[in-house]
Amino acid sequence: MSSADFGALKHPFVLRALEPSDYRKGYLKLLEQLTKVGEISEEEFTARVEETRHLGDLHHAVVIEDVERLAIVASATLLVELKFIRKCGKAGHIEDVVVDSTVRGQHLGQRIVDHLTELAKQLGCYKVILDCTEANVPFYEKCGFGLKERQMARYFS
Amino acid sequence: MSSADFGALKHPFVLRALEPSDYRKGYLKLLEQLTKVGEISEEEFTARVEETRHLGDLHHAVVIEDVERLAIVASATLLVELKFIRKCGKAGHIEDVVVDSTVRGQHLGQRIVDHLTELAKQLGCYKVILDCTEANVPFYEKCGFGLKERQMARYFS
Ligand SMILES: CC(C)(COP(=O)(O)OP(=O)(O)OC[C@H]1O[C@@H](n2cnc3c(N)ncnc32)[C@H](O)[C@@H]1OP(=O)(O)O)[C@@H](O)C(=O)NCCC(=O)NCCS
Ligand SMILES: CC(C)(COP(=O)(O)OP(=O)(O)OC[C@H]1O[C@@H](n2cnc3c(N)ncnc32)[C@H](O)[C@@H]1OP(=O)(O)O)[C@@H](O)C(=O)NCCC(=O)NCCS
Repeated sequence: MSSADFGALKHPFVLRALEPSDYRKGYLKLLEQLTKVGEISEEEFTARVEETRHLGDLHHAVVIEDVERLAIVASATLLVELKFIRKCGKAGHIEDVVVDSTVRGQHLGQRIVDHLTELAKQLGCYKVILDCTEANVPFYEKCGFGLKERQMARYFS
Repeated sequence: MSSADFGALKHPFVLRALEPSDYRKGYLKLLEQLTKVGEISEEEFTARVEETRHLGDLHHAVVIEDVERLAIVASATLLVELKFIRKCGKAGHIEDVVVDSTVRGQHLGQRIVDHLTELAKQLGCYKVILDCTEANVPFYEKCGFGLKERQMARYFS
């Protein structure tokens, strides 16, 4: 993606790739609105950001920053899966979508999902999939997604 | 995984990592029982196998071969996602599970899912997730999975 694809949001919001310095801009506090995050040191965080960057176009963590408050207010990740089906196709997986509770309802969620969907398309994915709670189905329908299958999970303690 | 973890199936079935030579053992024909596969040359197939191998422990495509018929009769893939939530945790995604129609009902599906689940656990994943049709929910319940969220999708033409 060229940088021209980013930053099309109204001031003070800027959409861009996740950076190690987002550790100090409340990124992990934002993720706590999604699920358990736990203790992560700045070193561990930076190492994980670098690890995902080595995956190149197979992993895109993006954020929306409020550049006035220097705070991360939304984030989501696109994972690109290399398949054999569909002519050795690729499938995009959108994960961990979250918008800070103080700025919900301003279409930031939709903008970040649209951005990752467009990115998946540009990267040659034949589909993008995601899992969500029943309560969030209408939100993703507004983002152009339709209900498909059932998600199942097994947790390790 | 040490090779000792593989091959615990009854003759003539052997569970192992996908190899480029599986192109000639009907691997793509097996995948056609799952969805559209399309034309893939041996070169394209080999290139994709190599590409996934470069992902190391983040991508494991496994197959069950009938070593008497030199035919691939089951396959599935584990994708490992690097997250920030859950102490920079990892989530396993099981994809594209399929057992040849001639050998269904012999627990090969369960063996391959169990294998990838155990692998995910050994690789440090805090959970394994997958998406399936309503009709396959009982199968995955037998594999120790429970229903979670809704899957949504957007297809590109
Ligand atoms: C779900 C979430 C990401 C939505 O973000 P948001 O920025 O508030 O949503 P948007 O403003 O972009 O909403 C886009 C449209 O969907 C609608 N919408 C959003 N959430 C909705 C819901 N739960 N039910 C019905 N409609 C919803 C909005 O009203 C808006 O509709 P409009 O275009 O008619 O105005 C946000 O509420 C959130 O972070 N929730 C907590 C974490 C979470 O559940 N994440 C998703 C994990 S699957
Ligand atoms: C679903 C599939 C992988 C199951 O493979 P399989 O080798 O036939 O299944 P197993 O023999 O390992 O089944 C394990 C248990 O689940 C049960 N089971 C399997 N499929 C079932 C179904 N659809 N409904 C209810 N029970 C089912 C089996 O009876 C067995 O139960 P038991 O332990 O009491 O004997 C296989 O049918 C298949 O490839 N289907 C087509 C492709 C597909 O749908 N893939 C999954 C995509 S989500």
